[in-house]
Amino acid sequence: MSSFYELLRNSCRSRNSLVCVGLDPDLRKLPESVKGEKKPVFEFNKQIIDATAHYACAYKPQIAYYSAIGAEDQLEQTIVYIKSEHPDMPVILDAKRGDIGSTADMYAIEAFDRYMADAVTVNPYMGGDTLAPFTKYADKGVIVLCRTSNPGSGELQELECSGGKLYETVARLASTAWNENNNIGLVIGATYPKVLGDVREIVGDMPLLVPGIGAQGGDLEKVLDYGLDRDQTGLLINVSRSVIYASSGDDFAEAAGREAGMLRKKINDFRKPISD
Amino acid sequence: MSSFYELLRNSCRSRNSLVCVGLDPDLRKLPESVKGEKKPVFEFNKQIIDATAHYACAYKPQIAYYSAIGAEDQLEQTIVYIKSEHPDMPVILDAKRGDIGSTADMYAIEAFDRYMADAVTVNPYMGGDTLAPFTKYADKGVIVLCRTSNPGSGELQELECSGGKLYETVARLASTAWNENNNIGLVIGATYPKVLGDVREIVGDMPLLVPGIGAQGGDLEKVLDYGLDRDQTGLLINVSRSVIYASSGDDFAEAAGREAGMLRKKINDFRKPISD
Repeated sequence: MSSFYELLRNSCRSRNSLVCVGLDPDLRKLPESVKGEKKPVFEFNKQIIDATAHYACAYKPQIAYYSAIGAEDQLEQTIVYIKSEHPDMPVILDAKRGDIGSTADMYAIEAFDRYMADAVTVNPYMGGDTLAPFTKYADKGVIVLCRTSNPGSGELQELECSGGKLYETVARLASTAWNENNNIGLVIGATYPKVLGDVREIVGDMPLLVPGIGAQGGDLEKVLDYGLDRDQTGLLINVSRSVIYASSGDDFAEAAGREAGMLRKKINDFRKPISD
Repeated sequence: MSSFYELLRNSCRSRNSLVCVGLDPDLRKLPESVKGEKKPVFEFNKQIIDATAHYACAYKPQIAYYSAIGAEDQLEQTIVYIKSEHPDMPVILDAKRGDIGSTADMYAIEAFDRYMADAVTVNPYMGGDTLAPFTKYADKGVIVLCRTSNPGSGELQELECSGGKLYETVARLASTAWNENNNIGLVIGATYPKVLGDVREIVGDMPLLVPGIGAQGGDLEKVLDYGLDRDQTGLLINVSRSVIYASSGDDFAEAAGREAGMLRKKINDFRKPISD
């Protein structure tokens, strides 16, 4: 089976990395050297990809940064570029979609057919039947929001409900009833590292996408301590702003590569040796 | 104050209607007569709008139907067309967005600056700080998912949590802590009419967007009975498929107008007279 999770596992192993680079290009923050380009967002991404591909095990474009400025074409081009240069590099479309079945069908077409992403992030609030249009693509990954990294995330996610906290119920459903095709992962913010341990208990070796290191201030060591699975993997540590805006000068790509490389090393220094 | 809710209230009053027409154009279902057009989605919408504007108090394009096929330009054109023909007609972008603050900023730009929508639907799972980038546009409407119309919606939304069911907590937060600018509304599915009564108790006269009549089978009379506010308004009854696909022939627009008119009448027959 050529599934997203095999693709991801192979990529993590062959590149010896758990670093996912978020491609969230904010026009206002792009260096002067690319601002004048006809396709500034694509040009920026291309240079970031060239500089970080050696250290990253996956890329995660956040679609809002493209749709805000009508740059869907540059998102398409970015993904095509990743796949042409690095055919075995997983691409996760961060879109956090969620809607009734007939509409979710359309969002799945958007993510998997139009953008050719290998995985997409989705929101569980509307229930399992709204995730099925995504999970039915058995070779794709579906990464469900569980416990997010933002300050207000506990307002609903930490509510004590029958059966535990809300995020625990999401984790349980995501690893059982919703996971018929065994292609679900979860988003767990780095800002709540102990939660990673609780969720790891519930979901076994399920892959966890962890945003919140870097600009949001999550504690990397704790994240690894609580979140790594039995194979010292199972985590996808996402960094966006702290890598792609490491420098605002013409050396932005070089600086991004350096940051990604340093993060990979920090993570790998913490991981116990993996037997090959 | 020229707020979305004044715009909506005025539109409901002047058009004597609570009918919101969903513009969810599925290429596979479009009539032959528009399929050959260069901009089939826009052409379809244009004819639907011309035929239904007399009966509708608002339009609600569902963005997934446009983004699945790369037709963002036709969505833009559709909204421009509504606003040029009917400047006082509210447009709700159904996008169900939800993300951390910096990303939500981008989604708000997408909805309000790029598409010039008067309101947008959002998902509450990530908490109040992820809604603030939308609600800070004080003259725009922010319609929060509360109890949705799909079969699996109860899985999380009906969970018994500290403080009541999850959707009750959402309703309470949406009418208090999250509602600093008094511009929030809620989505409550027609398929659970008693919930409308519960939520009406919690939120007072807050506008409720009610999908699920029509193709999804909600009971209109019960919806009105439980959901109307003290002014016999406060509900926005959405219909999409049962209106826009009322006929698959060349008379699709005429049939859509007839369906929208019948629905308006059914609703108004039930409402008690409003004193002007």
